[in-house]
Amino acid sequence: MTQELISIGKISTPYHVVEECPNNIQFDGPICTITLYDDYKEGISGLEKGQHILVMYWLDGANRNLIRQACIGNDSVKGTFALRSPHRPNPIGVAILPIEEIVAGEITVKGLDCLNGTKLVDIKPAIYREMA
Amino acid sequence: MTQELISIGKISTPYHVVEECPNNIQFDGPICTITLYDDYKEGISGLEKGQHILVMYWLDGANRNLIRQACIGNDSVKGTFALRSPHRPNPIGVAILPIEEIVAGEITVKGLDCLNGTKLVDIKPAIYREMA
Repeated sequence: MTQELISIGKISTPYHVVEECPNNIQFDGPICTITLYDDYKEGISGLEKGQHILVMYWLDGANRNLIRQACIGNDSVKGTFALRSPHRPNPIGVAILPIEEIVAGEITVKGLDCLNGTKLVDIKPAIYREMA
Repeated sequence: MTQELISIGKISTPYHVVEECPNNIQFDGPICTITLYDDYKEGISGLEKGQHILVMYWLDGANRNLIRQACIGNDSVKGTFALRSPHRPNPIGVAILPIEEIVAGEITVKGLDCLNGTKLVDIKPAIYREMA
């Protein structure tokens, strides 16, 4: 597979170095802004405040060769696909969360876990069933 | 961004042509099998039967230039990012669903919405809060 991703926008967060980033999404975390590039702004028409979206973003600087790795906070080692570590063969972060505000090509959400300036890959309406 | 995705495995489903594929995930749909390539098989150690995973897969044959498009089943037109259509700038399908069985590099789930032979991009443990 030689499938190249296109950046469709940027994400603004309060985090400027990796050490500041939380390890996962914080549902009551700080406000973050998702800004679509001009060519893609029309693509969010139809999304609404309060709607849950699935946001995908590219985790720059990840190690793409780790198949097993240490878990944060304990001594165990797990397979990369059993973890949400940014270090993975295809380093795409995914968050599912509600839209706080939406105006002209800009979506506000709370508590993303990525660096300021992170490249946006996709947004979709979220579909899922309740956790068992 | 010139970020190339790597295929880490393949997905087997009962669907051999696009017309047979359901439009979205069917939580009680047919059994589908996710098979990791040998180099990545160790990466699923730590995942368990019953656990909810987020599966990402590459939607080959998508039109990557559609910013607005018709909704299925009615006459309205929406932005691509307000739809789950496979036709999008970065055609990555995402499903969140429980593991039915897991054995040696192979995960069984129910009701994926992609063609047989679809390329696997990533698997992560699912994290989400209840829909409002």
